[in-house]
Formats: sequence, structure tokens, C-alpha cells
Amino acid sequence: MDFELDRGIAVDRTADGEYVAHLDPGWVVGGGVNGGYLLAVIGNAIHAELAELGQPDPVSVSAYYLSPSVPGPAVVRLRRVRTGRARSTVAASLVQRQDGREVERITALAVFGDLDAMPGEAQREIPPPVLPPVADCIPTLEAPPEFIKVAPLLQRFGTRLDPAYAAWATGRPSGNGIIQAWFRLVDDRPLDPIALLLAVDALPPVTFDLGLPGWAPTLELTAHVRARPAPGWAIVRHATRNISGGMFEEDCEVWDSAGHLVAQSRQLALLPRPPS
Amino acid sequence: MDFELDRGIAVDRTADGEYVAHLDPGWVVGGGVNGGYLLAVIGNAIHAELAELGQPDPVSVSAYYLSPSVPGPAVVRLRRVRTGRARSTVAASLVQRQDGREVERITALAVFGDLDAMPGEAQREIPPPVLPPVADCIPTLEAPPEFIKVAPLLQRFGTRLDPAYAAWATGRPSGNGIIQAWFRLVDDRPLDPIALLLAVDALPPVTFDLGLPGWAPTLELTAHVRARPAPGWAIVRHATRNISGGMFEEDCEVWDSAGHLVAQSRQLALLPRPPS
Repeated sequence: MDFELDRGIAVDRTADGEYVAHLDPGWVVGGGVNGGYLLAVIGNAIHAELAELGQPDPVSVSAYYLSPSVPGPAVVRLRRVRTGRARSTVAASLVQRQDGREVERITALAVFGDLDAMPGEAQREIPPPVLPPVADCIPTLEAPPEFIKVAPLLQRFGTRLDPAYAAWATGRPSGNGIIQAWFRLVDDRPLDPIALLLAVDALPPVTFDLGLPGWAPTLELTAHVRARPAPGWAIVRHATRNISGGMFEEDCEVWDSAGHLVAQSRQLALLPRPPS
Repeated sequence: MDFELDRGIAVDRTADGEYVAHLDPGWVVGGGVNGGYLLAVIGNAIHAELAELGQPDPVSVSAYYLSPSVPGPAVVRLRRVRTGRARSTVAASLVQRQDGREVERITALAVFGDLDAMPGEAQREIPPPVLPPVADCIPTLEAPPEFIKVAPLLQRFGTRLDPAYAAWATGRPSGNGIIQAWFRLVDDRPLDPIALLLAVDALPPVTFDLGLPGWAPTLELTAHVRARPAPGWAIVRHATRNISGGMFEEDCEVWDSAGHLVAQSRQLALLPRPPS
């Protein structure tokens, strides 16, 4: 099968050991390329680097966003910081050329390993929230055309928002700072550990639900992938509990169709300016 | 004033722009040097590097722990990844010499800025838990001598544990996976943003409360410092909600004496082996 995400995150290893990617304009949101997609591009480069070690899966990835990425060529450079038997640590940098010089977009650290080699049973996990049936949730695909124009990536997602936290879409934000949804990719590309890096940053920012519809630049995002997801609809939940100093933290959890917590992330982002 | 923490995190800048530290044996716990103390050492090196830019404070620090540090000399190497007007991003590496070669102990990324230049008022924050009065909580200083011998760093902390989550100390872990305490440094060194990097990893791991008293090696820890703490007793709370794949996540929140959330962190750590 040929899926949009796989085309979008494909990397070619150069003779120098760098990974060349082509950032696809289909993953643009607002003034830049979606941060979760970029995380998946970086994750896919590390995956290619460490697959031969039997450590294909992200366990933890911390990304510091430096400047907005633009569609077009990008290079991912890796440094193997520590190579272990069970897991390895890698430093990664995503760079693009701009006005004839190289600009670093993201710097990241990651631990990769083999999720299949880890104990399968969860001893404790946050249970998924109870959402209305998929058919009763709001497809972001059906957002107004002017919205899709600014956020073409919505066409890649089969996201269906829980209507309880989606009234911001019609100008009535709930003020809860919560957004939760059923999640799949529109072409039904199965979710795997690399796709979970996309999933943790695939919903609109929780600030939409706080009445702040502007761009919320991420300073830092750390994702933990805890298990290989079962096929089918995932549930993704974003919430913020701390808004201060012009910044907010956004916690994200992802559960697979079997109800298991498969990923969680936290990001620290700048609050958008209030609408004028 | 001359405080233990300041002596322990002091760094000297070399002509090459590296920062030399001396890891103090007083911060040892079990087989290594405490991870929060190491984070404060790295934070202090970045503080020294960026103070001239008016960006003295950690905003976000992500550390990947590679090998256990030992007391003695250490070198912190920094790379300024992005220098901005309001905040800058730095990559850091803490290395030690071992058996004649250099071993990387921690690799980290950080954003520093000026907490005083950020809006002061919190729009939303997690409220602190209600703890019994300090006098009714359990001083870790009074731990049994054999315990202090393994964890000399306890002598540096004025920690007083909430007895509701401290029965593991007498062999009856509650199973909640929660540990919370009043926190100060024993010599009353005021908590500041750098000291908060220590505070987020200063309590025993929550696995103690789960009946797993062994060492829980941290893979990754990200701390966000949200405000400069008011003087006085802080409250620190650790909890785990996800235990799977042989790993657990430990969330930490720190509130200052005024009840404001001043730092939070999340770490992903390996579960200790069950006691034999």
C-alpha cells in the first residue's frame, strides 16, 4: 500500500550518513509545517538508522523547535550518543537551506528500542475518556474551506472531535482547555510507533478551546511511546492545566482501539496573542 | 552565604569555553549521583553561559541519562543552538573521564530565558495538595543510618514526607504510586530556578510506594520551570499513572510557599526489579 504519511516521512540516506527528506506541503498548518509530522520525519530517520540494531521504535523523543519549517527539502543529521543492547540514544537535527544558508529547525534527543521486546502487559494506565460514538463526533475534514486552506493537513486526518469540546469551531470555546477526538489517518494508514509521533500533535491546540485561535508556537515537546498500537480508531486527548508566564503546557494521551495508553506527550508552548 | 548546593553546582569556565564541575559525594544516592543534582549542575553551566544575554533562567530542560555519574570532576560542554532575543536554546553534554577515556553521562537540551520578564500572573494552575502541617510530616533526615549511608543526599534535604504516602518506609507501601512532601534544603539555601531542577528529582521514586525499593534508572526527564519561587517551604508531589513495558512515567509538580506551581517535570524510568 502507498500511504500519504509514508511518502511524507520517507528519508534517503546519503553517502555521508545524513537523511534527506522532502517536507510535503500537505502537512502545512498556518505559517509552518506541523510539528508532529516533523517529529515523525525525524523519528523515521532514526528508525532507518537503528533498524539494523533491532531498535526500530521510538521510546522517548524530545524536540526543541527553533524556527518554522517550510515545505521542501530538509536534512536530518543524527549523532549516536549511546548505543546499548536494549536501547540507544540519538541526537538529531533537522535543517533546511534558507536564503543560501543552513537554518536549524528542530534539535532533538531520542531513545529508541524494540517495543516488542518489552513486557506486554500494562500494570497501570490512564483509562481512555468516554467519547460519543464516532458517527456522533465532528469530522475536521468538514471544516470550512477557508479553514482547510490555512490548515491543509486537516485533509490528511480522519479526526472526529468530541462535540463537548468543539464549540470553539463555531465561536463558542468552552474554556475548559480540553480537546479530544477519535483519530485515524484519512487513508487508513495503520498507526504504528512512528505515526504516534504525529498523533501527539495532530489535534488543534487546546488554546482553541480557551478562545485563543492563533498560532501557539511549541518550545519543547517530549513524547513517550509506550506500546505498539492495535489497529483501528485511536482516541487522542489534549488538556492544559498550567497557563502562566505567557506559556501553557499541553498534555496529550493517545489510546489505541483496545483502550491501551500507547503514547503520551507534554509540550510547552507560547500562548497565542488574544484575538484583536 | 555559603550553601552546600552552590558549592556542589559551581562551575569554572575554561579558556575553551567548557565548564568544569566537581560532582560532590554528598549528592550520591545508591550507585550514582542524584539526577536532579546533575540537572542543576548542567543548568548552572548554561546559566553562566547565558547570563550575559539576560537569559539566566531555565524554562525547559530535557535530559537523557546515559550512564551513572560518579563523584569527582566532570565537564559540561555547551552548544548554543539558537540565540534569540527573549530566549535561547542550548545543547549540553556532561562527561567524565573513566578508565582513561571520556564517557558521556547526560546529554540535554534546554531553553533558557528571563522568568522576571514573563507575565507574572498565572491564568490557571494545578492547586497544591493539602498536606498535614510540617511538624506532622516525616523528616527524611531521620531515616535509619543504613539508609542514609546508601543515600547520603538525604542529609542535604529538609524533606518532610506526607505520612499518608510514606508507609513504604516501614515496609507497608500504599500501592498508590504517590509520594508528596514539604521540601526545603537543609541549610535553608533559598530555592531559585536552578534549585528547582534539583527539586524535581529530590524525592524517593514513586516506585517505593509501589513496593519496589530498588534503583529506578531514569531514561529521560524534562522539567519546565514556570516561575521564580517565593521563599519558604515548597511542596513537591510525585505520581505515576502509567506503568507498562517495564517502564513507568513519574510526573512531578513543585509549588512554592505562596501555592503557585513553579515547576513540573515528567520522567520515563525503568521499573526496578521486584525484591527477591
